[in-house]
Amino acid sequence: VAVGLGPLPDLPPIEGVKLASVAAGVRARGRVDLGLIACDAGTRCAAVFTRNAFCAAPVVIARRHLAADTPRALLVNSGNANAGNGAEGEEDALTTCHALAALIDCPVEAVLPYSTGVIGERLPADRITDALPGAVAELSADGWHGLARAIMTTDTAPKGSTRTILLSSGATVRINGVAKGSGMIRPDMATMLAFLATDAAVEQDALDAALRHGVSRSFNRITVDGDTSTNDACTLLATGRARGARIAGDSGADYEAFRDALADVLTELAVAVIRDAEGATKFITLDVTGAATAADALRAGYAVAESPLVKTALFASDPNWGRILAAIGRAGVSGLVAERVVIEINGVRIASAGARDPSYSEERGRAAMAPADIHLHIDLGMGAAAERIWTSDLGYEYVRINAEYRS
Amino acid sequence: VAVGLGPLPDLPPIEGVKLASVAAGVRARGRVDLGLIACDAGTRCAAVFTRNAFCAAPVVIARRHLAADTPRALLVNSGNANAGNGAEGEEDALTTCHALAALIDCPVEAVLPYSTGVIGERLPADRITDALPGAVAELSADGWHGLARAIMTTDTAPKGSTRTILLSSGATVRINGVAKGSGMIRPDMATMLAFLATDAAVEQDALDAALRHGVSRSFNRITVDGDTSTNDACTLLATGRARGARIAGDSGADYEAFRDALADVLTELAVAVIRDAEGATKFITLDVTGAATAADALRAGYAVAESPLVKTALFASDPNWGRILAAIGRAGVSGLVAERVVIEINGVRIASAGARDPSYSEERGRAAMAPADIHLHIDLGMGAAAERIWTSDLGYEYVRINAEYRS
Repeated sequence: VAVGLGPLPDLPPIEGVKLASVAAGVRARGRVDLGLIACDAGTRCAAVFTRNAFCAAPVVIARRHLAADTPRALLVNSGNANAGNGAEGEEDALTTCHALAALIDCPVEAVLPYSTGVIGERLPADRITDALPGAVAELSADGWHGLARAIMTTDTAPKGSTRTILLSSGATVRINGVAKGSGMIRPDMATMLAFLATDAAVEQDALDAALRHGVSRSFNRITVDGDTSTNDACTLLATGRARGARIAGDSGADYEAFRDALADVLTELAVAVIRDAEGATKFITLDVTGAATAADALRAGYAVAESPLVKTALFASDPNWGRILAAIGRAGVSGLVAERVVIEINGVRIASAGARDPSYSEERGRAAMAPADIHLHIDLGMGAAAERIWTSDLGYEYVRINAEYRS
Repeated sequence: VAVGLGPLPDLPPIEGVKLASVAAGVRARGRVDLGLIACDAGTRCAAVFTRNAFCAAPVVIARRHLAADTPRALLVNSGNANAGNGAEGEEDALTTCHALAALIDCPVEAVLPYSTGVIGERLPADRITDALPGAVAELSADGWHGLARAIMTTDTAPKGSTRTILLSSGATVRINGVAKGSGMIRPDMATMLAFLATDAAVEQDALDAALRHGVSRSFNRITVDGDTSTNDACTLLATGRARGARIAGDSGADYEAFRDALADVLTELAVAVIRDAEGATKFITLDVTGAATAADALRAGYAVAESPLVKTALFASDPNWGRILAAIGRAGVSGLVAERVVIEINGVRIASAGARDPSYSEERGRAAMAPADIHLHIDLGMGAAAERIWTSDLGYEYVRINAEYRS
């Protein structure tokens, strides 16, 4: 069960975008496992993909298509990652793109494929192409919830977020987003797929800049187990169909409002992914402050957030500042002075001056660790740089899920 | 229960070294938790310590003493790490050194302190000093097994190794070693203490070089969970009491024989630590070959060895080459070509050309994964560099031990 994850919010229509989700039988019969997003001509697209050297076939094809044309449709399946399948994987991904392009009458390069699920099993392209006519027939502006469910794998709940912004012209624009992901998650993306759309008319450079800005503060600041996947992708469509909603460049109040709202949507999705992290019983917001540089803050933060010893202590609701100090100590922060480091958990100071804080007691520590939502604050006492990371704990369920699930 | 760890071998006396182990009640009554190694005047010493920025009080004191004098005694307790205790921690460590120095009539700088166990609880120095007269009275050349047991914490079995070498003079010399450690283990040392002694007369430079050489191939090539401790230390004494056993410099056949035998002892101890890794059910020898550089081989190796997803797959006896490929893909090996990577498990080729190997079948994969000893071979197909790493799997027991034990 996800830690404090709320229900899927209403996700209103985005003009110029239609969605469908159907059961194609990719892995299991009857499960809705195929999602389709169609967008009007003239829609702009920004996307970021996994940096894993072994990227899956759909990532290879989507990157290539995006460089050649602007998309008219995104096609995503769960149940099979189409990764580690060599040349046949690319052929299969292309087969599904060709079939969809023929149905909606667009160039094959205007279709971007996405897959998530088991690695190393051949994609049943025929089942997907068989299901496509039905999916196209079902396209509707109200399909966001269906898409959020169709892309789930080990997720226990669908994830979505939306924002409405008032521009200086008086126009309102919307941003919707859905995401999936619950493990293999860390910076440089995750086994994570996110699909976002806005009806704002954002110029290409501004759209790219806003997505990079938002992802760097959201999906690139979460970690479950330090692993990254072969399939990660975050794609943003801007249809430009809202009236008076032109965002001309990557500056100005309208751009900032759009960028910040987009970052909010991305952050809500990223936080939802961590709240639903595989086997998680705790949701941890980790603030590292007082670092000499942002890089140092992230070094210390990830060393703590990815330490199995810290994560098992969090699972045990054990305010084990010794393990936290030890993780900071090996993080490679140059010039670290043990005596300056301060650690607080949910407002209770547990360590200072390289030792247990004088005010600390086991009772206060246990009380601070009791909630499912944990705020862990580490001040390095060296400078003014600060970074925030979100992570989860490591318990029996993580082992069970990952020992039983073939990903 | 340790994976394939044999019984403690006979550890014959090393001339010039006497040992004792007693129950001081550091943490629990009755448990033998205090070890003492006394050596003759003129003994040389080489040592390496944790690189964690938060090193424990005994590491601070041992480093300082070693720089000031040559040791006459090593004093080690389990049950309490004396880490994270600020200035009081150093005072307590010094108190025990002073007490022992008075008993055996040597400068306080000739005593090196070591501690392992719970972090952040004050060392009960009085219990240790109370137990010291009894320990000194018990000093004997036959105390190696007792020492191996006295230093255990979450270890399930004592760990020791010995070698005898024939030098060109016709003299035989011995090297004994004992170690403890079962978690928080990775390069740059581990929560690992190792004590070694030889009766060879090795010059200081040669002794230092041989220890660095051996540690780089043993304790710095093992990983359980990527965590390092505040207390790690590996100390080698050379008494020079064997006749005709002078090893003059760090070259020549005698030096090489000594260096290689020492590396063997260190490797046996390091492998024993991994076989006894917390909650381990598998022992994995990971060979990365075909790398462009040794650094690339280690990058790929540690990314795989420390991936929780790979480790849970190993626990499940699941030949999950997809997770292994994904870990290699994020390791930061520049110029990696997916099509050249080959993965074999216990001789069965499971992946090649970025995909499942054509010869692979689930049955062969399952059979290869069945034994407790797993040889994982990754060839990157890029060059001639190769490195070997040892690691363990990640299962329920790891979580249980680390969620229940306050380290």
